[in-house]
Amino acid sequence: MTYFDLKHVPKNEVVATFELTPCNKGVASKVALESSVGTWTGVKGTVEKLKAKVFYMKKGFIKIGYPVELFEKGNLPQLLSSVAGNIFGMKVLNSLKLVNLDFPKGYVQFFKGPAFGLQGVLEYYGISERPVLGTIVKPKIGLNERNHAKRAYESWIGGMDFVKDDENLTSMRFNNFEKRVVEVLKIQKKAERETGSKKLYAFNVTASVSEMIERAKFVKKNGGRCVMIDVLTAGIGAVQELRNANLGLIIHAHRAMHAAIGRGSFGIDFLVWCKLLRLAGVDQLHAGTVVGKMKGDRQDVFGCYNFLRKKWLSIKPVMPVASGGLHPGHVPFLVENFGIEVVFQFGGGVHGHPFGTVSGSRAVVQAVQASINRVRLKNYAEKHEELKQALKKWSR
Amino acid sequence: MTYFDLKHVPKNEVVATFELTPCNKGVASKVALESSVGTWTGVKGTVEKLKAKVFYMKKGFIKIGYPVELFEKGNLPQLLSSVAGNIFGMKVLNSLKLVNLDFPKGYVQFFKGPAFGLQGVLEYYGISERPVLGTIVKPKIGLNERNHAKRAYESWIGGMDFVKDDENLTSMRFNNFEKRVVEVLKIQKKAERETGSKKLYAFNVTASVSEMIERAKFVKKNGGRCVMIDVLTAGIGAVQELRNANLGLIIHAHRAMHAAIGRGSFGIDFLVWCKLLRLAGVDQLHAGTVVGKMKGDRQDVFGCYNFLRKKWLSIKPVMPVASGGLHPGHVPFLVENFGIEVVFQFGGGVHGHPFGTVSGSRAVVQAVQASINRVRLKNYAEKHEELKQALKKWSR
Repeated sequence: MTYFDLKHVPKNEVVATFELTPCNKGVASKVALESSVGTWTGVKGTVEKLKAKVFYMKKGFIKIGYPVELFEKGNLPQLLSSVAGNIFGMKVLNSLKLVNLDFPKGYVQFFKGPAFGLQGVLEYYGISERPVLGTIVKPKIGLNERNHAKRAYESWIGGMDFVKDDENLTSMRFNNFEKRVVEVLKIQKKAERETGSKKLYAFNVTASVSEMIERAKFVKKNGGRCVMIDVLTAGIGAVQELRNANLGLIIHAHRAMHAAIGRGSFGIDFLVWCKLLRLAGVDQLHAGTVVGKMKGDRQDVFGCYNFLRKKWLSIKPVMPVASGGLHPGHVPFLVENFGIEVVFQFGGGVHGHPFGTVSGSRAVVQAVQASINRVRLKNYAEKHEELKQALKKWSR
Repeated sequence: MTYFDLKHVPKNEVVATFELTPCNKGVASKVALESSVGTWTGVKGTVEKLKAKVFYMKKGFIKIGYPVELFEKGNLPQLLSSVAGNIFGMKVLNSLKLVNLDFPKGYVQFFKGPAFGLQGVLEYYGISERPVLGTIVKPKIGLNERNHAKRAYESWIGGMDFVKDDENLTSMRFNNFEKRVVEVLKIQKKAERETGSKKLYAFNVTASVSEMIERAKFVKKNGGRCVMIDVLTAGIGAVQELRNANLGLIIHAHRAMHAAIGRGSFGIDFLVWCKLLRLAGVDQLHAGTVVGKMKGDRQDVFGCYNFLRKKWLSIKPVMPVASGGLHPGHVPFLVENFGIEVVFQFGGGVHGHPFGTVSGSRAVVQAVQASINRVRLKNYAEKHEELKQALKKWSR
């Protein structure tokens, strides 16, 4: 079969790894065919050298090589339409997961990647020997602009470096985007003066695209340095647009809806999104926690962290963000497993502290100090009241 | 529990229907909480009147009402981040499908919907008593601009109304977007002159957003009337942007990747996308076939067709498109089940005809004539050679 050749050695090809059932020559060929130049019946004029080829098949996994000419330079939606498009709907399949994509230099070179990336973010704060500590303002939606800004202030004063909007807060009747930006940036300066530390706030600009760009420009104009985009609900075309606008803003990527695409028997593993989003040029990306409220298999999560931080041609590393149901009790696990080149991000685990946001932030700082110095939290808590209260409320 | 009240009657709320396991009060409440104003632990300041409420729970399904204030006017990515975001990743769930969304007038009124819609498309052609017949140029990728245009011409001459690019063809080294537009529109005029009928071509503009808008403007400037966008790979933010640009072009929506999101135990049913895309304002939308190469349960597909064509406040109906592995042998089923307010779209089933594209198109026209007049294809084929050959090659 012309779409199946186990002797084929890919050269200058995009390689997709799929896990699928049934996994056999016939079905594998159909996947390669539909996602490259073929369809369900023969058509005259089909170009032989553009055919994708299954070159590996073992234990339920296949690898397909796609000639790089099949892909438009710098166009990620087109890549998805090809290698992650129609094939998921094919009747012959009982399951299909796109688990990895590998790109030749001839594909990667047309992307800018992150403007700041992991190093740029660390340099912004001047942090080098501990993780970046962050929080999402909670309740996620419902506070007015002033109370919202106040909660950010308390977080910073308590020791947080980074504060952000949550995913469903954009511009609401009770919390207008522009007003929020003004209030938060004003109070950010105050927090910076009082603590002597650099602080950062990610404003959620997720919207239809020109609205999004307008809002990002508003942040910039008012002295903000960071915006957040919900990368999957806005779409990868919108992410590329935000990066290509070159506004000099750190781009924080939230990943709402990723599990609708990645969990279950059909879909796309998050590692693939890590790669696409790194190409697109986000600077920070939610990449899982293992512990906490959100599902994420250990091996998958570590795979994402490793990829985001490793060297990859000319594309800068991305700062991974651990977020979702975290509290101070999780910190030893987080430090041990994710190290320090990472954002630890707490929501309820800060603002739900019995003594409020300032104390919640302090408890996080204390947990990190203890973990980095390899002191058990329980012992450290003896002389640190905020941590003590946090551990009392939340046990791992 | 404040997020669970079976006596609650939703009023001015967005109502989401989920199918989930486990389906019990505790888990249902957590879904309502995470997708509205709550998180995994209590936080001071949470606004009671913004809480979503589970008001129905039966046989594995729940309905949740979300106060409309939770949603920004006209911002579909924000809606998705809320009701279709983090919840899919929650550890407490074994499965979660968002199967429907219902909107109050107070939400719908901020959307334009389709500029043309079903009626506008029919008026463009002047068609009223038969389905619109369409084809995708095949091979889907690999032809140069001239050969590509030639295949479109042959399709039109053979009787097709509508021709389109396939999902992975954008602007390639061997088939440049601008050149393709020029070649195709030139030959479209010729086909219109020779057949005396209005023809339409959908150029695939899927790309990062400003590139997409530039390409759509190029189509417009050169006299084209229609563009295609791959709605899920580009993202709903990009779709809204294309519609909001108000270019006076018919928007054809392809749905590559929908099964990655909708098939399996976690995800979003296509009916939900039909609603969002109708709000966003696409004019034509791929909505399934039942028969052919692509999976689609009968009831789900009919649900989508019904929704797209029915009256819905001020939002125009959308023209459904049946596409995916179709050939003339499927036409009686299609006419019987989808009626005539629809585009029947054939790819390999036209260009894979033993005598080529013109004959393939004629075979489709003949199959439609037979089906509308309730003549069996086999009988009609006796005096129609093209149909005869098609049926010989492809049996249902």
